[in-house]
Amino acid sequence: MSASVSRQDIAEAQARIDGYAVKTPLLRFSVLDEAVGGTVLVKPECLQRTGSFKFRGAFNRLSMIPEAERARGVVACSSGNHAQGVAEAARILGMKATIVMPSDAPSIKLQRTRNFGAEVVTYDRAAEDREEIAAEICRRNGATFVHPFEDPDVIAGQGTVGVELATQAREMGVLPEAVLVCTGGGGLSAGVALALETDLPTCRFHTVEPEGFDDYARSLECGERLSNPAASGSICDALLTERPGENGFEILKRRADKGLVVSDAEARAAAAFAFRELKLVVEPGGAVALAALLSAKVDCAGQNIAIVITGGNVDFSILTSELE
Amino acid sequence: MSASVSRQDIAEAQARIDGYAVKTPLLRFSVLDEAVGGTVLVKPECLQRTGSFKFRGAFNRLSMIPEAERARGVVACSSGNHAQGVAEAARILGMKATIVMPSDAPSIKLQRTRNFGAEVVTYDRAAEDREEIAAEICRRNGATFVHPFEDPDVIAGQGTVGVELATQAREMGVLPEAVLVCTGGGGLSAGVALALETDLPTCRFHTVEPEGFDDYARSLECGERLSNPAASGSICDALLTERPGENGFEILKRRADKGLVVSDAEARAAAAFAFRELKLVVEPGGAVALAALLSAKVDCAGQNIAIVITGGNVDFSILTSELE
Repeated sequence: MSASVSRQDIAEAQARIDGYAVKTPLLRFSVLDEAVGGTVLVKPECLQRTGSFKFRGAFNRLSMIPEAERARGVVACSSGNHAQGVAEAARILGMKATIVMPSDAPSIKLQRTRNFGAEVVTYDRAAEDREEIAAEICRRNGATFVHPFEDPDVIAGQGTVGVELATQAREMGVLPEAVLVCTGGGGLSAGVALALETDLPTCRFHTVEPEGFDDYARSLECGERLSNPAASGSICDALLTERPGENGFEILKRRADKGLVVSDAEARAAAAFAFRELKLVVEPGGAVALAALLSAKVDCAGQNIAIVITGGNVDFSILTSELE
Repeated sequence: MSASVSRQDIAEAQARIDGYAVKTPLLRFSVLDEAVGGTVLVKPECLQRTGSFKFRGAFNRLSMIPEAERARGVVACSSGNHAQGVAEAARILGMKATIVMPSDAPSIKLQRTRNFGAEVVTYDRAAEDREEIAAEICRRNGATFVHPFEDPDVIAGQGTVGVELATQAREMGVLPEAVLVCTGGGGLSAGVALALETDLPTCRFHTVEPEGFDDYARSLECGERLSNPAASGSICDALLTERPGENGFEILKRRADKGLVVSDAEARAAAAFAFRELKLVVEPGGAVALAALLSAKVDCAGQNIAIVITGGNVDFSILTSELE
């Protein structure tokens, strides 16, 4: 059963996160324009509070929990970015957060989630079901479960990226002909695509995924939600979802063009490019839209293209092999 | 003999660099505000074209060279950031650039300067005089010498950082009570201080330098230009100047408050903080103003403080020891 999200929900989310989330800038880099032969607008959500866009959706959702229910806390499952977003939103709102994270999550993400004040419960990605673990905690505490990409209020919060992007692009006088977004469960992509439907109605929209986790690319092609063959095996730890979210897919089925796919090596090279040339710290999963441009998965010649860099929570050692 | 720079010169520089230089954003980070107990505005010139503010002054100066003289090219001395700024400005304007760089400059800076199309001439920092080498090339070619911080048109170009910062701070409704700028020869600091004299007249201004290269701090205290005891020995390679520039010192003597000084360890820790928490790639010399805040060289409690992060051209290995 799918719940709907509207442009109005995104506008309301924007009002709720105002003053808490960062209105990230829309950046241009001549070195990137020259590399791809077009005009690229970069929305660097690595500069967002907690280091990824996830804070937007988490704060929007948590601030909608009625006062009476807040004392019972929130629970989330996440490989690390939604974890930090929920933990930080809970800290601001004075709520207890419990986060169910895979034991093989990047150590920086486990550590940062704890630093934001959350209790972390780890599980074995291969043997255990994280949603069951979370459901059990919710039953015990009466806590509110916050899904990373299925929750309509989370999708609405992520959609604020799209509203900002469209407004900033207009202010800069550069209207994107295509927008590329790194895609896991599709909460951000759905929110952005929904915002652009009204705010930049003629632009194309592309999801970008890592090889082996191209569930959106395949699902969009055949019109129904397909699963990925494996649950791990890509360096893009932020994008390892089982299949498209139901609500996200509803929106993207209507709105998205062909899904793009990059290899782990292309994602890693894009993160290294971001470090060297853009001076931005980007995690591999946050770099796949940039990777799609740099490895010519889409024709940029003479085009205006906008990309969202979704996160920067990368273990330093991940970048080392590319940069030393 | 000192040449004067006026607020009008900065306004003219702003018009010249428009469309070539990046108008870098003014950023806020809750994690930084919480770390220092105040409100911090960050002007990240690491996101500037070529990875440092130096492109502003270089492009302003080079675009003022009369058409008839452009074919004879430009010459500059630089440890690497001015080098890249001049090289890129020359490339845009179709001029030949020759850059005299110390043989021990960070390899990323040597390589990037060549990538921007310049010819690099290396010298031995301990045994040779770089200005003599540059003067000889100018005599031979009739090229224009572009001094990294003494040239009034370079100072005017760097001053555009101050104009942007003041405008953006007003737009954000956060008026800085102090502005901290990483300082080598003082071209940027002088330009920014000059801009703020009219644009934010009540705010304090602090130079920030690494230990052993605190020539501005000592010179401002005694009212005359003092030299540093050594020519090398700090990790902040961008800030290793012999003594304050004559023109910069004239302006800063009038305008600057107490000069601040940080250790190499504090600069390195600040660069690591920028990587981990701000998701910005910052070189140690570009991180000294941030280091001054993080190591409490200035009282931030309840204050609005603006800092300029001046550059991000760092060899990856420099960050490694702090981050692994």
